Amino acid sequence: MEIIKGTITTPKGFKAAGNFVGLKKEKKDLALILSEKPSIASGCFTQNIVKAAPVLWDIERVKTNNDKIKGIVINSGNANACTGTQGIKDVESTAEIFADLADCKKENVLACSTGVIGVNLPMDTLIKGIKDTFPLLSNSYESGKAASEAIITTDTFTKNICVEIELSGKKATIGGMAKGSGMINPNMATMLCFITTDVNISKKMLDKALNECITDTFNMICVDGDTSTNDTVLVLANGMAENPEITDENDDYKIFKEALFHINKTLAIACARDGEGATKLMEVNISGVKTKSDARKIANSVVSSNLFKAALFGADANWGRVLCAMGYSGADFNPNLVTITFKSKQGEIILIDNGTPIVFDEEKASKILKETDIYINITLKEGTESATAWGCDLTYDYVKINGDYRS
Amino acid sequence: MEIIKGTITTPKGFKAAGNFVGLKKEKKDLALILSEKPSIASGCFTQNIVKAAPVLWDIERVKTNNDKIKGIVINSGNANACTGTQGIKDVESTAEIFADLADCKKENVLACSTGVIGVNLPMDTLIKGIKDTFPLLSNSYESGKAASEAIITTDTFTKNICVEIELSGKKATIGGMAKGSGMINPNMATMLCFITTDVNISKKMLDKALNECITDTFNMICVDGDTSTNDTVLVLANGMAENPEITDENDDYKIFKEALFHINKTLAIACARDGEGATKLMEVNISGVKTKSDARKIANSVVSSNLFKAALFGADANWGRVLCAMGYSGADFNPNLVTITFKSKQGEIILIDNGTPIVFDEEKASKILKETDIYINITLKEGTESATAWGCDLTYDYVKINGDYRS
Repeated sequence: MEIIKGTITTPKGFKAAGNFVGLKKEKKDLALILSEKPSIASGCFTQNIVKAAPVLWDIERVKTNNDKIKGIVINSGNANACTGTQGIKDVESTAEIFADLADCKKENVLACSTGVIGVNLPMDTLIKGIKDTFPLLSNSYESGKAASEAIITTDTFTKNICVEIELSGKKATIGGMAKGSGMINPNMATMLCFITTDVNISKKMLDKALNECITDTFNMICVDGDTSTNDTVLVLANGMAENPEITDENDDYKIFKEALFHINKTLAIACARDGEGATKLMEVNISGVKTKSDARKIANSVVSSNLFKAALFGADANWGRVLCAMGYSGADFNPNLVTITFKSKQGEIILIDNGTPIVFDEEKASKILKETDIYINITLKEGTESATAWGCDLTYDYVKINGDYRS
Repeated sequence: MEIIKGTITTPKGFKAAGNFVGLKKEKKDLALILSEKPSIASGCFTQNIVKAAPVLWDIERVKTNNDKIKGIVINSGNANACTGTQGIKDVESTAEIFADLADCKKENVLACSTGVIGVNLPMDTLIKGIKDTFPLLSNSYESGKAASEAIITTDTFTKNICVEIELSGKKATIGGMAKGSGMINPNMATMLCFITTDVNISKKMLDKALNECITDTFNMICVDGDTSTNDTVLVLANGMAENPEITDENDDYKIFKEALFHINKTLAIACARDGEGATKLMEVNISGVKTKSDARKIANSVVSSNLFKAALFGADANWGRVLCAMGYSGADFNPNLVTITFKSKQGEIILIDNGTPIVFDEEKASKILKETDIYINITLKEGTESATAWGCDLTYDYVKINGDYRS
């Protein structure tokens, strides 16, 4: 696996465009993705039972192998969530307009939305926008970059990645882009992620690979504990790399899955780092746990603790809040076997060792926590399972951004 | 039931004291409660599996009817949590010192702590403090008030309440005080609550009454989603009202339970209102739900949503975040049957009716949300169960207070 400069347009046969069409005040707000050859598609979606209209549409579309996907329409500025039956009709119209232009059925078009909840899409603006943007579709790097700009909301940077792999002698490529900054919690986020690849793989194996990758990547990040109505990860695979079709867990599958995992992990961490108002990325590593499920619970609980997130913002080595968050995680463990260290590029400091608090150098701890990348390493001595979760600090700016998001 | 001016010293036979002994920088930090006659005691404790040393001690003490309780030692400034075996020894020493002064066994003394986690109690200071404070014990209103001042940490006001009831012709009194401001979440909080009563009641019925009251009061408040290591509610009943002992669910039990519920509810709401940095109290009422458990889940999820709490701070009528929080609560409901209104003394406004968003007057909504007491009323049409939860807004000051709490 080699990381290369690229976007979702780098894999063979994918075009993209990003444009400002008037859904937001001035920034790009519409992205289109077009697959030259119909692609098989896999998706993972929010577990919130209040699902936005486009999520309901996409879930149906990626269920079977019959709907070979030609493209995706993504708008920012409006989530088309909690928009009643009109919202459902609007997704269908959106797909129809794109389908007309791409010469396919509306069932071959996916749609994603992110932005304000509870307001119907301004369809005239969107329809005109799709028509205006379609001619801009291209496989250039710049078009991929423009698409990644058009899907963001409160994000402060775009999130792109591309990797190259070799499958049975054939070169294949996977590109990905994501957006996500607030309303981010384990089990996805107001997080949209789009992955394109020219790998030749069966629907069954693509579904399997994506599901396996999500559990330890996008389902292990938290910004604010709010699971969105719109979370979506979509993968399109068009087979144009011409590798022998992957239909079981052979070596090619393993290489592909490793690359797909890397893409998901990188984009998930980028979303945590770009958490609304965040000044620090926090990585929580836990090992020595009895079960994988408990390890995930503990890691997620620590990255989600408002109290510890606020302490992190203040560079306060308040490890008691880490232990406290572990304690209410719902996982079963012996507090007397807990060891916690805080680490950054300024060094590492041990705070509690086998349940016994260590007298530590506050100045050194503060220096470590003033860095932007903080590692909270926790070990138990009760088993062999481990997990990692990512989050960020809780800052004044988080409150500011969310105190009046709609205006 | 009549609400009267009073504190925990108002019921017959209870003395209290509050004093500054040097655990905090300058504010009162030690409270003592003494029961003239040994009291039966009931307690509810944190569900965090990391339990502070005094919590472990108290759980043992209130388990059986054998430990008739003479008093409670409460310190603020230090939580005696995550303090290893030394922490356990320190609780025992604390109980011993008080027991010597009160002429009882250490097993008849309860202890509670609140404050910083992970630092051992300065026992010399505490022991001297208990000895200095014991002579101050009195049944005056002022002593009760002083005790309520000594148990607070980041609270901005003390929380006292007293009610009078009549049981089979005898006057009985219940007094209560609480502290709690941060680290507050359903299933208790860094929340301490002490209730004294002269009611004559069996241990079994006192336990039953307390448990029934907690579920819909202290277990339905949230400030920040962090469940503390120290949460404790203790009730002492000394029987000095001389009513016929309550041993079953007779009329006297119902009168007592109603009064106990009122005390718990009032103190729980006071803790939510006094949430760290809070400018608003939020009450979430949900009705028409299939099961009681789902109703509680939904109400708790809404009061816990960082995104909605931040919107409330900004007086932004972002009802989509309410529906979103309902959706990830884990409760099962049909989003198309949801009706949501926001209400305050400025009026009421409907935002979504049977799942359909209503075009509403933003100015009126903002006026309603600029008040300090906000009611979020949600109705489903799927059943007859209801629940209420209380919380507060998420503000810059919450981040400020918790960014550097230890210093």
